[in-house]
Amino acid sequence: MSVTGITASNPYSNVNDLLSNVRNFKIIESTLREGEQFANAYFSRENKIKIATMLSDFGVDYIELTNPAASPQSREDCEAICKLGLKAKILTHTRCTMEDAKLACDCGVDGVDVVIGTSQFLREHSLGGKDMKAITKQALEVIEYIKSRGCEVRFSSEDSFRSDLVDLLSIYRAASNAGVGRVGVADTVGCASPRQVYDLVRTLRGCVSTDIEVHFHDDTGCAVANSFTALEAGATHIDTSVLGIGERNGICPLGALMARMMPTSRDYILSKYKVHQLKAIEDFVAETVEINVPFNNPITGFCAFTHKAGIHAKAILNSPSTYEILKPEDFGLSRQLYRYVHFTSRLTGWNAIKSRVDQLGLKMTDDQIKEVTGKIKQMADLKVMTLDESDALIRSFHLELQQAENN
Amino acid sequence: MSVTGITASNPYSNVNDLLSNVRNFKIIESTLREGEQFANAYFSRENKIKIATMLSDFGVDYIELTNPAASPQSREDCEAICKLGLKAKILTHTRCTMEDAKLACDCGVDGVDVVIGTSQFLREHSLGGKDMKAITKQALEVIEYIKSRGCEVRFSSEDSFRSDLVDLLSIYRAASNAGVGRVGVADTVGCASPRQVYDLVRTLRGCVSTDIEVHFHDDTGCAVANSFTALEAGATHIDTSVLGIGERNGICPLGALMARMMPTSRDYILSKYKVHQLKAIEDFVAETVEINVPFNNPITGFCAFTHKAGIHAKAILNSPSTYEILKPEDFGLSRQLYRYVHFTSRLTGWNAIKSRVDQLGLKMTDDQIKEVTGKIKQMADLKVMTLDESDALIRSFHLELQQAENN
Repeated sequence: MSVTGITASNPYSNVNDLLSNVRNFKIIESTLREGEQFANAYFSRENKIKIATMLSDFGVDYIELTNPAASPQSREDCEAICKLGLKAKILTHTRCTMEDAKLACDCGVDGVDVVIGTSQFLREHSLGGKDMKAITKQALEVIEYIKSRGCEVRFSSEDSFRSDLVDLLSIYRAASNAGVGRVGVADTVGCASPRQVYDLVRTLRGCVSTDIEVHFHDDTGCAVANSFTALEAGATHIDTSVLGIGERNGICPLGALMARMMPTSRDYILSKYKVHQLKAIEDFVAETVEINVPFNNPITGFCAFTHKAGIHAKAILNSPSTYEILKPEDFGLSRQLYRYVHFTSRLTGWNAIKSRVDQLGLKMTDDQIKEVTGKIKQMADLKVMTLDESDALIRSFHLELQQAENN
Repeated sequence: MSVTGITASNPYSNVNDLLSNVRNFKIIESTLREGEQFANAYFSRENKIKIATMLSDFGVDYIELTNPAASPQSREDCEAICKLGLKAKILTHTRCTMEDAKLACDCGVDGVDVVIGTSQFLREHSLGGKDMKAITKQALEVIEYIKSRGCEVRFSSEDSFRSDLVDLLSIYRAASNAGVGRVGVADTVGCASPRQVYDLVRTLRGCVSTDIEVHFHDDTGCAVANSFTALEAGATHIDTSVLGIGERNGICPLGALMARMMPTSRDYILSKYKVHQLKAIEDFVAETVEINVPFNNPITGFCAFTHKAGIHAKAILNSPSTYEILKPEDFGLSRQLYRYVHFTSRLTGWNAIKSRVDQLGLKMTDDQIKEVTGKIKQMADLKVMTLDESDALIRSFHLELQQAENN
C-alpha cells in the first residue's frame, strides 16, 4: 500500500533531511551516573556490574559512571567496571578540574565527560562568580591533560539553555579547537522546548567539528521529544537512563527513546539494540531502586498496548497498525498478554465481541452478536465485568440460541 | 538581575512570536472521555460528578464526556453532569453520524466534538473504505445539524498525521466554511514529532478561520512537547486528562502540561488555573482507577524536587532557581517535604552538610564540616543511611569537637 509521498511501513520517512541523525546516533547510558543521583538509588557494586553488563549486552555505545572522586567506593566500583572488558565503552563524568580528571584517567576509563556551569545562574551560585575567560582557561587545561592520557574527552556546559549564546559558542569552539571528541549540551533544569533545542543544536552544528551529545532533564515532560529533535538538528549522542531515573524526575528514558525512534528508524534500532531485553533491564533497575514501572511507561507500561473503545477495537482487529505504531512482539512481549482488546466494558463495540465469539469457537450471526453486545454493555453499566463473566454471558446467550433453534 | 535579552524571572520569554498562543490557550479536559478508555477506568456516576466538579473548580475551560451513545449509563451520566451547572462548558465526543449528534444534543451538552477518520489506514479498516467526498458530505450534514440545535461544534480528523495533507486541509476548510467553532488535529496513534506538529498546525492556521484543538497520544513520549509546540504554531485548545490516562499509555497529562507552561507562561497559568489543587485531583483519579502516581510524574512525583548530587545541592542551597524552574509552593506543596536536598549519600557534598549543621543549630568551621562530610560519605558507601543516622553522626562528631575544646 502506498500513500502519497509516504510508505505504509514507515509513514514518517524523512530521508532527505541531511542534517538529521535519527538513523545514525549513539547512546550514552547514564543509569550508573545520572541514575545514581536518583533519590532512591543506592547501587551495590554487584548491582552496578549487573546493570553495566545488561546495558552493554543491550547494545548501548557508552556507559557513564559516577565520578570516582565522589567517594572511595565510587572509585573502586569504577575500576572494577573498567576491568570487565564490556563491549560498551566506559565513561565517567567529572567536574572540570585537574584532580577529578587525573583520578578518572587513573581508574582506566575509555573517556572522561567533563562538565562546567556556564549560565549566569550557575556561575554565581555554584562556581563563586567565575568569568567565562577563567572558565575557558580551566577547561582547556583539563582537556589537554585528559588527551595526554590517551582518553576520549567530552566537554559539556551545564544549564546550556540559560547560558548566554555567545559565551556558549565561544567555549564550545575553543573546546573543539583543542581537539575534544564531543561537546555536550545539557538542559540541566529541564526547561528547554523542542524548537529551542533545534535552534541551539543546529547553530552549534555549524560552529564545531566534533560530535554533539545532548542531555535532557524531564521536569517539563519534554526530555524524549527534545532528544529526538536534537538528532534532527545534527546531534550524534543521546544521554539516557533506564526508566529515566536521575536528579528530580530524571532524564530521557532509554525505553521511551526506543519507542520514539522505532517508527522513524526501525531498521537502525533493530540492527543495533536488543530491544527485546528492554523489559528485563527496566524490571531489574526498578526493583533495585524500589520503584514501580509507571503505568504509562512507553512499551512496557501495563496498558501500553491495551485498546478499549469500540471504534478502536474494531479497527485493531482488522489491522493492528491502524492504531499501533509499535509492535509488542518487537520487544519480546507476548501479543496475547499485551495487546488486550478490552471488551468487557460499556465502551465496547460489537466487532470486539465478534472476535471473542470466534475465539470461543461459537457461531452467531452479526445480528445475534449485536444483541449479546447490548447485553454485555448493559451489564458493564452496572458493575465491573471480568473476562470470565463476559464469556459466561456470551456462552449462555449462545446456549439460548441453540435451544430456541432446537425447539 | 538581567541577562542579555532575557529576564531572570523568565529566561524563556518569547514575547515577539505573534503566532504563539503559549500565553493564551484553553484546556479541554478529557479524563471523563479519553480517560474512560483507559484500561483500568470504570467511573461510577458519583465519581464522574466528583471529577467533573474538581476539574471545573481547577479552572479547565471544557470537560469532555464519553459519547452518550456508548451505553444507557453513559447517556444518563452525561445528562446528570450537564445539569450540575458547572463553570466549565460540557462537551461530548461522538462519531460523525446524525444518530450520535442528535443524542448528544438531546443530553443538554454545550458542544459536540465530532471525529472522523481521515487516514487511509482508518478509512480502510474502520470506515469500510469510504472516500473523502463521502466523508466530507457526511461531516457537513452533521455539523449543520448540531449548529441548528444551538450547540458548539468541533470537527476533528482522526490519525491526522498519517492522513494525506491535501485531503486533510480540504475537509478542514469545508468544516471551517460550514461554520464550526473549532477544528481538531489528533495524533491518534502517538507518533507525531514536534517539528511535524509545528508544520501541520502552522499550515492549518493559514487555511481555517476557526480555533484549533490538538490531541496528542503519548506512545512515543512526545505528547507534552507536541502540545506545547502546537501552541507555538497557533493552536488554541489542548486536550488533556488527569495523569494522562487514556487508550494505551494515554495522552497529554494535565499536570505535565502545567509543568511545561509554568516557566513560559507563569502569570497566565496562575491567573487562570488553581494549580495548588493539582495534587488532590491526581490523587483522587489515581485512587479511582487503581494506579500509582508515577515516580517521575512532573510536579507531584515523589522525587520531582529532590536533589542529591553534591554540586547540585550546593547550588540549590545558594539559590533554588539554580536547578529548579518550578517552585513546589506554587503547587501547594510544602518546600520542606518536597525540596529535599539529599545528603545522606555517597554523592553528597559538604555544602549540603553545612546546611544541615545549621538546621541542627550546631556550630562548626568549614574544615570541621568537610571532615564530618568525609565520615558521612564513608558510611554511605557501606550502607543506606537514613536522615536520623546522618544527624546522629553529625551530632556525635560535634560532641567530640566540644570535648576536645574543653580538654
